Amino acid sequence: MTTVQRGRFITVEGTEGVGKSTNIDFLCHLLHARGIDIVLTREPGGTPLAEELRELLLSPREERVSQDTELLLMFAARAQHIENVIRPALARGAWVISDRFTDATFAYQGGGRGVDEEHIRLLETLVQHGLHPDLTLLLDLDVEVGLMRASARSTPDRFEQEKVDFFSKVRQAYLQRAANEPERFAIIDASVALPDVQQQIASAVSQYLGN
Amino acid sequence: MTTVQRGRFITVEGTEGVGKSTNIDFLCHLLHARGIDIVLTREPGGTPLAEELRELLLSPREERVSQDTELLLMFAARAQHIENVIRPALARGAWVISDRFTDATFAYQGGGRGVDEEHIRLLETLVQHGLHPDLTLLLDLDVEVGLMRASARSTPDRFEQEKVDFFSKVRQAYLQRAANEPERFAIIDASVALPDVQQQIASAVSQYLGN
Repeated sequence: MTTVQRGRFITVEGTEGVGKSTNIDFLCHLLHARGIDIVLTREPGGTPLAEELRELLLSPREERVSQDTELLLMFAARAQHIENVIRPALARGAWVISDRFTDATFAYQGGGRGVDEEHIRLLETLVQHGLHPDLTLLLDLDVEVGLMRASARSTPDRFEQEKVDFFSKVRQAYLQRAANEPERFAIIDASVALPDVQQQIASAVSQYLGN
Repeated sequence: MTTVQRGRFITVEGTEGVGKSTNIDFLCHLLHARGIDIVLTREPGGTPLAEELRELLLSPREERVSQDTELLLMFAARAQHIENVIRPALARGAWVISDRFTDATFAYQGGGRGVDEEHIRLLETLVQHGLHPDLTLLLDLDVEVGLMRASARSTPDRFEQEKVDFFSKVRQAYLQRAANEPERFAIIDASVALPDVQQQIASAVSQYLGN
Protein backbone atom coordinates (compact mmCIF):
# COMPACT_ATOMS: atom_id res chain seq x y z
CA MET A 1 0.00 0.00 0.00
CA THR A 2 1.34 3.40 -0.98
CA THR A 3 0.71 6.43 1.19
CA VAL A 4 0.54 9.70 -0.69
CA GLN A 5 2.08 12.59 1.17
CA ARG A 6 -0.26 15.58 1.37
CA GLY A 7 0.85 18.48 -0.86
CA ARG A 8 1.64 21.96 0.42
CA PHE A 9 -0.57 24.99 0.11
CA ILE A 10 1.21 28.21 -0.89
CA THR A 11 -0.54 31.54 -1.30
CA VAL A 12 0.75 34.72 -2.88
CA GLU A 13 -0.62 38.03 -1.63
CA GLY A 14 -0.10 41.73 -2.14
CA THR A 15 -1.73 44.99 -3.24
CA GLU A 16 -2.06 46.31 -6.81
CA GLY A 17 1.06 46.53 -8.95
CA VAL A 18 3.35 44.43 -6.76
CA GLY A 19 3.99 42.01 -9.63
CA LYS A 20 1.99 39.03 -8.44
CA SER A 21 1.51 37.37 -11.85
CA THR A 22 5.15 37.56 -12.93
CA ASN A 23 6.36 36.28 -9.60
CA ILE A 24 3.80 33.50 -9.41
CA ASP A 25 5.12 32.30 -12.80
CA PHE A 26 8.60 32.35 -11.36
CA LEU A 27 7.49 30.44 -8.25
CA CYS A 28 5.82 27.73 -10.38
CA HIS A 29 9.00 27.46 -12.45
CA LEU A 30 11.08 27.06 -9.27
CA LEU A 31 8.88 24.28 -7.90
CA HIS A 32 8.59 22.52 -11.24
CA ALA A 33 12.39 22.44 -11.40
CA ARG A 34 12.29 20.51 -8.13
CA GLY A 35 9.92 17.96 -9.68
CA ILE A 36 6.89 19.13 -7.73
CA ASP A 37 3.41 18.61 -9.20
CA ILE A 38 1.65 22.00 -9.10
CA VAL A 39 -1.93 23.21 -9.29
CA LEU A 40 -2.05 26.95 -9.97
CA THR A 41 -5.30 28.66 -9.04
CA ARG A 42 -6.68 31.99 -7.91
CA GLU A 43 -9.25 33.71 -5.73
CA PRO A 44 -11.95 34.69 -6.03
CA GLY A 45 -12.43 31.89 -8.55
CA GLY A 46 -10.77 28.57 -9.27
CA THR A 47 -13.90 26.57 -10.23
CA PRO A 48 -16.59 27.34 -12.84
CA LEU A 49 -19.13 28.39 -10.18
CA ALA A 50 -16.52 30.33 -8.20
CA GLU A 51 -15.49 32.13 -11.40
CA GLU A 52 -19.16 33.04 -11.98
CA LEU A 53 -19.18 34.47 -8.47
CA ARG A 54 -15.96 36.36 -9.25
CA GLU A 55 -17.75 37.93 -12.22
CA LEU A 56 -20.71 38.85 -10.01
CA LEU A 57 -18.34 40.34 -7.43
CA LEU A 58 -16.11 42.28 -9.77
CA SER A 59 -18.53 43.50 -12.44
CA PRO A 60 -19.93 46.97 -11.88
CA ARG A 61 -23.66 47.12 -11.18
CA GLU A 62 -26.22 49.80 -10.41
CA GLU A 63 -27.47 47.98 -7.33
CA ARG A 64 -25.48 48.75 -4.20
CA VAL A 65 -23.86 45.55 -2.92
CA SER A 66 -23.91 45.35 0.88
CA GLN A 67 -20.70 44.54 2.78
CA ASP A 68 -22.31 41.40 4.19
CA THR A 69 -23.27 40.24 0.70
CA GLU A 70 -19.78 40.80 -0.65
CA LEU A 71 -18.19 38.97 2.26
CA LEU A 72 -20.55 36.00 1.97
CA LEU A 73 -20.06 35.73 -1.80
CA MET A 74 -16.31 35.78 -1.29
CA PHE A 75 -16.55 32.90 1.18
CA ALA A 76 -19.13 31.02 -0.94
CA ALA A 77 -16.61 31.06 -3.81
CA ARG A 78 -13.88 30.03 -1.36
CA ALA A 79 -15.92 27.09 0.00
CA GLN A 80 -16.39 25.81 -3.53
CA HIS A 81 -12.72 26.36 -4.38
CA ILE A 82 -11.53 24.52 -1.27
CA GLU A 83 -13.84 21.55 -1.66
CA ASN A 84 -13.55 21.03 -5.41
CA VAL A 85 -9.97 22.12 -6.14
CA ILE A 86 -7.65 22.75 -3.19
CA ARG A 87 -8.41 19.75 -0.95
CA PRO A 88 -8.49 17.17 -3.76
CA ALA A 89 -5.18 18.48 -5.15
CA LEU A 90 -3.46 18.43 -1.75
CA ALA A 91 -4.87 14.96 -1.06
CA ARG A 92 -3.29 13.52 -4.20
CA GLY A 93 0.05 15.09 -3.24
CA ALA A 94 0.06 18.11 -5.57
CA TRP A 95 1.14 21.52 -4.32
CA VAL A 96 -1.44 24.26 -4.66
CA ILE A 97 -0.34 27.80 -5.47
CA SER A 98 -3.18 30.28 -5.05
CA ASP A 99 -3.10 33.86 -6.29
CA ARG A 100 -4.76 35.28 -3.15
CA PHE A 101 -6.66 33.54 -0.37
CA THR A 102 -8.23 34.50 2.98
CA ASP A 103 -5.45 36.95 3.91
CA ALA A 104 -6.78 39.07 1.02
CA THR A 105 -10.24 39.11 2.60
CA PHE A 106 -8.76 40.30 5.90
CA ALA A 107 -6.68 42.90 4.06
CA TYR A 108 -9.22 44.23 1.53
CA GLN A 109 -12.58 43.77 3.26
CA GLY A 110 -11.25 44.03 6.83
CA GLY A 111 -8.40 46.53 6.59
CA GLY A 112 -9.59 48.41 3.50
CA ARG A 113 -13.35 48.55 3.95
CA GLY A 114 -13.61 48.23 7.70
CA VAL A 115 -15.61 44.98 7.78
CA ASP A 116 -15.60 43.56 11.31
CA GLU A 117 -12.64 41.13 11.50
CA GLU A 118 -14.63 38.94 13.83
CA HIS A 119 -17.10 38.26 11.02
CA ILE A 120 -14.29 37.32 8.67
CA ARG A 121 -12.75 35.02 11.27
CA LEU A 122 -16.11 33.38 11.87
CA LEU A 123 -16.58 32.64 8.18
CA GLU A 124 -12.98 31.48 7.88
CA THR A 125 -13.63 28.88 10.59
CA LEU A 126 -16.94 27.83 9.08
CA VAL A 127 -15.62 27.41 5.55
CA GLN A 128 -12.03 26.26 5.90
CA HIS A 129 -12.51 23.44 8.42
CA GLY A 130 -8.94 23.92 9.61
CA LEU A 131 -7.31 24.43 6.20
CA HIS A 132 -4.66 27.18 6.19
CA PRO A 133 -1.79 28.03 3.84
CA ASP A 134 1.52 26.43 4.73
CA LEU A 135 3.47 29.33 3.28
CA THR A 136 2.37 32.80 2.22
CA LEU A 137 4.54 35.06 0.09
CA LEU A 138 3.56 38.67 0.72
CA LEU A 139 4.82 40.92 -2.06
CA ASP A 140 5.18 44.26 -0.34
CA LEU A 141 5.54 47.62 -2.03
CA ASP A 142 4.88 51.28 -1.40
CA VAL A 143 1.27 51.86 -2.39
CA GLU A 144 1.85 54.86 -4.69
CA VAL A 145 4.60 53.02 -6.54
CA GLY A 146 2.33 49.99 -6.91
CA LEU A 147 -0.56 52.05 -8.25
CA MET A 148 1.79 53.74 -10.73
CA ARG A 149 3.04 50.37 -11.91
CA ALA A 150 -0.51 48.95 -12.11
CA SER A 151 -1.69 51.78 -14.34
CA ALA A 152 1.31 51.40 -16.66
CA ARG A 153 3.42 54.09 -15.02
CA SER A 154 1.09 57.03 -15.39
CA THR A 155 1.90 59.99 -13.16
CA PRO A 156 0.94 59.81 -9.51
CA ASP A 157 -1.40 62.81 -9.60
CA ARG A 158 -3.82 60.76 -11.68
CA PHE A 159 -4.72 58.72 -8.62
CA GLU A 160 -7.31 60.07 -6.32
CA GLN A 161 -6.05 60.28 -2.77
CA GLU A 162 -8.94 57.99 -1.82
CA LYS A 163 -7.37 55.12 -3.72
CA VAL A 164 -4.00 55.65 -2.06
CA ASP A 165 -5.64 55.77 1.37
CA PHE A 166 -7.59 52.59 0.69
CA PHE A 167 -4.59 50.60 -0.50
CA SER A 168 -2.47 51.93 2.37
CA LYS A 169 -4.96 50.40 4.78
CA VAL A 170 -4.90 47.15 2.82
CA ARG A 171 -1.10 47.09 2.90
CA GLN A 172 -1.02 47.78 6.63
CA ALA A 173 -3.50 44.96 7.25
CA TYR A 174 -1.32 42.56 5.24
CA LEU A 175 1.81 43.61 7.16
CA GLN A 176 0.00 43.22 10.46
CA ARG A 177 -1.04 39.69 9.56
CA ALA A 178 2.54 38.88 8.56
CA ALA A 179 3.77 40.25 11.88
CA ASN A 180 1.25 38.04 13.73
CA GLU A 181 2.28 34.88 11.89
CA PRO A 182 5.98 35.23 11.05
CA GLU A 183 6.38 31.44 10.63
CA ARG A 184 3.86 31.30 7.80
CA PHE A 185 4.66 34.56 6.03
CA ALA A 186 7.67 35.52 3.94
CA ILE A 187 7.64 39.26 3.22
CA ILE A 188 9.16 39.93 -0.18
CA ASP A 189 10.41 43.45 -0.87
CA ALA A 190 8.87 44.10 -4.29
CA SER A 191 10.41 47.56 -4.69
CA VAL A 192 13.76 46.25 -5.96
CA ALA A 193 14.67 45.06 -9.48
CA LEU A 194 12.88 41.88 -10.64
CA PRO A 195 15.93 39.57 -10.37
CA ASP A 196 16.35 40.70 -6.77
CA VAL A 197 12.66 40.08 -6.03
CA GLN A 198 13.05 36.59 -7.48
CA GLN A 199 16.18 35.99 -5.47
CA GLN A 200 14.16 36.68 -2.33
CA ILE A 201 11.41 34.30 -3.47
CA ALA A 202 13.95 31.55 -4.20
CA SER A 203 15.46 32.04 -0.73
CA ALA A 204 12.06 31.94 0.94
CA VAL A 205 11.22 28.70 -0.86
CA SER A 206 14.60 27.13 -0.02
CA GLN A 207 14.20 28.12 3.59
CA TYR A 208 10.67 26.71 3.67
CA LEU A 209 11.90 23.43 2.16
CA GLY A 210 14.84 23.37 4.51
CA ASN A 211 17.45 23.25 1.74
CA MET B 1 -42.45 66.18 12.73
CA THR B 2 -44.16 62.96 11.68
CA THR B 3 -42.97 59.65 12.98
CA VAL B 4 -43.45 56.75 10.58
CA GLN B 5 -44.42 53.55 12.30
CA ARG B 6 -42.26 50.64 11.25
CA GLY B 7 -44.09 48.15 9.02
CA ARG B 8 -44.53 44.48 9.88
CA PHE B 9 -42.61 41.62 8.37
CA ILE B 10 -44.72 38.58 7.45
CA THR B 11 -43.27 35.42 5.95
CA VAL B 12 -45.09 32.50 4.33
CA GLU B 13 -43.49 29.07 4.52
CA GLY B 14 -44.25 25.50 3.54
CA THR B 15 -43.15 22.53 1.46
CA GLU B 16 -44.01 21.84 -2.20
CA GLY B 17 -47.65 21.90 -3.25
CA VAL B 18 -49.07 23.54 -0.13
CA GLY B 19 -50.51 26.41 -2.22
CA LYS B 20 -48.14 29.19 -1.21
CA SER B 21 -48.70 31.41 -4.27
CA THR B 22 -52.49 31.32 -4.16
CA ASN B 23 -52.56 31.97 -0.45
CA ILE B 24 -49.99 34.75 -0.61
CA ASP B 25 -52.26 36.48 -3.15
CA PHE B 26 -55.12 36.10 -0.71
CA LEU B 27 -53.02 37.48 2.16
CA CYS B 28 -52.05 40.55 0.09
CA HIS B 29 -55.71 41.10 -0.79
CA LEU B 30 -56.66 40.88 2.91
CA LEU B 31 -54.06 43.43 3.99
CA HIS B 32 -54.80 45.76 1.07
CA ALA B 33 -58.43 45.75 2.12
CA ARG B 34 -57.24 47.09 5.48
CA GLY B 35 -55.43 49.93 3.71
CA ILE B 36 -51.97 48.52 4.40
CA ASP B 37 -49.11 49.38 2.01
CA ILE B 38 -47.52 46.07 0.99
CA VAL B 39 -44.21 45.01 -0.53
CA LEU B 40 -44.42 41.44 -1.85
CA THR B 41 -41.09 39.70 -2.29
CA ARG B 42 -39.53 36.25 -2.24
CA GLU B 43 -36.44 34.25 -1.28
CA PRO B 44 -34.00 33.41 -2.57
CA GLY B 45 -34.24 36.61 -4.59
CA GLY B 46 -35.95 39.96 -4.19
CA THR B 47 -33.22 42.18 -5.73
CA PRO B 48 -31.51 41.92 -9.14
CA LEU B 49 -28.30 40.51 -7.62
CA ALA B 50 -30.21 38.20 -5.29
CA GLU B 51 -32.25 36.94 -8.26
CA GLU B 52 -28.97 36.25 -10.11
CA LEU B 53 -27.89 34.24 -7.07
CA ARG B 54 -31.25 32.42 -7.12
CA GLU B 55 -30.52 31.44 -10.71
CA LEU B 56 -27.04 30.22 -9.74
CA LEU B 57 -28.53 28.24 -6.84
CA LEU B 58 -31.45 26.66 -8.66
CA SER B 59 -30.01 25.98 -12.12
CA PRO B 60 -28.61 22.51 -12.62
CA ARG B 61 -24.85 22.34 -13.17
CA GLU B 62 -22.23 19.66 -13.70
CA GLU B 63 -20.03 20.97 -10.91
CA ARG B 64 -20.97 19.63 -7.51
CA VAL B 65 -22.01 22.52 -5.24
CA SER B 66 -20.77 22.06 -1.68
CA GLN B 67 -23.21 22.46 1.22
CA ASP B 68 -21.14 25.35 2.58
CA THR B 69 -21.29 27.12 -0.78
CA GLU B 70 -25.05 26.70 -1.05
CA LEU B 71 -25.59 27.95 2.49
CA LEU B 72 -23.35 31.00 1.98
CA LEU B 73 -25.00 31.89 -1.34
CA MET B 74 -28.40 31.67 0.30
CA PHE B 75 -27.30 34.08 3.02
CA ALA B 76 -25.49 36.36 0.55
CA ALA B 77 -28.77 36.74 -1.34
CA ARG B 78 -30.57 37.28 1.98
CA ALA B 79 -28.13 39.98 3.11
CA GLN B 80 -28.75 41.86 -0.13
CA HIS B 81 -32.52 41.36 0.16
CA ILE B 82 -32.62 42.61 3.73
CA GLU B 83 -30.46 45.66 3.16
CA ASN B 84 -31.91 46.79 -0.17
CA VAL B 85 -35.56 45.76 0.08
CA ILE B 86 -36.86 44.58 3.45
CA ARG B 87 -35.34 47.17 5.81
CA PRO B 88 -36.08 50.19 3.61
CA ALA B 89 -39.70 49.05 3.12
CA LEU B 90 -40.26 48.46 6.84
CA ALA B 91 -38.61 51.80 7.65
CA ARG B 92 -41.05 53.72 5.46
CA GLY B 93 -43.97 51.92 7.11
CA ALA B 94 -44.78 49.34 4.43
CA TRP B 95 -45.51 45.75 5.35
CA VAL B 96 -43.25 43.16 3.78
CA ILE B 97 -44.67 39.79 2.75
CA SER B 98 -41.91 37.36 1.84
CA ASP B 99 -42.48 34.05 0.09
CA ARG B 100 -39.96 32.16 2.26
CA PHE B 101 -37.20 33.44 4.55
CA THR B 102 -34.71 31.96 7.04
CA ASP B 103 -37.12 29.32 8.35
CA ALA B 104 -36.85 27.76 4.89
CA THR B 105 -33.06 27.55 5.27
CA PHE B 106 -33.46 25.77 8.61
CA ALA B 107 -36.10 23.46 7.10
CA TYR B 108 -34.51 22.65 3.72
CA GLN B 109 -30.77 22.90 4.36
CA GLY B 110 -30.92 22.02 8.07
CA GLY B 111 -33.78 19.51 8.30
CA GLY B 112 -33.69 18.21 4.74
CA ARG B 113 -29.97 18.08 3.95
CA GLY B 114 -28.54 17.79 7.44
CA VAL B 115 -26.51 21.03 7.43
CA ASP B 116 -25.37 21.82 10.98
CA GLU B 117 -28.06 24.10 12.47
CA GLU B 118 -25.37 25.92 14.43
CA HIS B 119 -23.89 27.13 11.13
CA ILE B 120 -27.27 28.37 9.97
CA ARG B 121 -27.85 30.17 13.27
CA LEU B 122 -24.42 31.77 13.08
CA LEU B 123 -25.10 33.15 9.58
CA GLU B 124 -28.58 34.24 10.64
CA THR B 125 -27.04 36.34 13.41
CA LEU B 126 -24.33 37.73 11.15
CA VAL B 127 -26.67 38.72 8.32
CA GLN B 128 -29.96 39.69 9.97
CA HIS B 129 -28.63 42.04 12.66
CA GLY B 130 -31.66 41.28 14.82
CA LEU B 131 -34.28 41.32 12.04
CA HIS B 132 -36.87 38.54 12.40
CA PRO B 133 -40.37 38.01 10.96
CA ASP B 134 -43.19 39.37 13.09
CA LEU B 135 -45.58 36.71 11.86
CA THR B 136 -44.97 33.49 9.94
CA LEU B 137 -47.76 31.57 8.24
CA LEU B 138 -46.75 27.95 7.90
CA LEU B 139 -48.89 26.16 5.32
CA ASP B 140 -48.78 22.57 6.47
CA LEU B 141 -49.76 19.54 4.44
CA ASP B 142 -49.06 15.84 4.21
CA VAL B 143 -45.94 15.52 2.04
CA GLU B 144 -47.31 12.95 -0.42
CA VAL B 145 -50.45 15.00 -0.97
CA GLY B 146 -48.31 18.11 -1.53
CA LEU B 147 -46.06 16.36 -4.03
CA MET B 148 -49.11 15.05 -5.90
CA ARG B 149 -50.55 18.55 -6.04
CA ALA B 150 -47.21 20.06 -7.11
CA SER B 151 -46.88 17.67 -10.02
CA ALA B 152 -50.46 18.33 -11.18
CA ARG B 153 -52.07 15.34 -9.46
CA SER B 154 -50.07 12.62 -11.06
CA THR B 155 -50.19 9.30 -9.25
CA PRO B 156 -48.15 8.89 -6.08
CA ASP B 157 -46.00 6.05 -7.40
CA ARG B 158 -44.29 8.51 -9.72
CA PHE B 159 -42.44 9.97 -6.73
CA GLU B 160 -39.31 8.33 -5.66
CA GLN B 161 -39.39 7.47 -1.98
CA GLU B 162 -36.26 9.61 -1.63
CA LYS B 163 -38.26 12.74 -2.43
CA VAL B 164 -40.96 11.87 0.08
CA ASP B 165 -38.33 11.21 2.75
CA PHE B 166 -36.59 14.51 2.04
CA PHE B 167 -39.75 16.61 2.20
CA SER B 168 -40.90 14.75 5.30
CA LYS B 169 -37.74 15.91 7.04
CA VAL B 170 -38.31 19.45 5.77
CA ARG B 171 -41.89 19.41 7.06
CA GLN B 172 -40.84 18.08 10.45
CA ALA B 173 -38.20 20.82 10.74
CA TYR B 174 -40.82 23.47 9.95
CA LEU B 175 -43.23 22.03 12.53
CA GLN B 176 -40.46 21.88 15.11
CA ARG B 177 -39.65 25.56 14.56
CA ALA B 178 -43.33 26.42 14.87
CA ALA B 179 -43.52 24.47 18.13
CA ASN B 180 -40.48 26.38 19.44
CA GLU B 181 -41.93 29.78 18.57
CA PRO B 182 -45.71 29.49 18.89
CA GLU B 183 -46.10 33.27 19.26
CA ARG B 184 -44.61 33.97 15.87
CA PHE B 185 -46.01 31.05 13.90
CA ALA B 186 -49.55 30.37 12.73
CA ILE B 187 -49.85 26.82 11.42
CA ILE B 188 -52.39 26.71 8.60
CA ASP B 189 -53.87 23.33 7.77
CA ALA B 190 -53.53 23.31 3.97
CA SER B 191 -55.22 19.92 3.50
CA VAL B 192 -58.74 21.36 3.59
CA ALA B 193 -60.66 23.12 0.79
CA LEU B 194 -59.25 26.47 -0.31
CA PRO B 195 -62.00 28.61 1.29
CA ASP B 196 -61.30 26.89 4.58
CA VAL B 197 -57.54 27.46 4.22
CA GLN B 198 -58.25 31.14 3.57
CA GLN B 199 -60.57 31.32 6.55
CA GLN B 200 -57.70 30.14 8.72
CA ILE B 201 -55.39 32.75 7.20
CA ALA B 202 -57.94 35.51 7.79
CA SER B 203 -58.29 34.40 11.42
CA ALA B 204 -54.54 34.30 11.93
CA VAL B 205 -54.21 37.84 10.54
CA SER B 206 -57.12 39.12 12.66
CA GLN B 207 -55.64 37.55 15.73
CA TYR B 208 -52.23 39.01 14.95
CA LEU B 209 -53.75 42.46 14.48
CA GLY B 210 -55.84 42.04 17.61
CA ASN B 211 -59.16 42.56 15.86
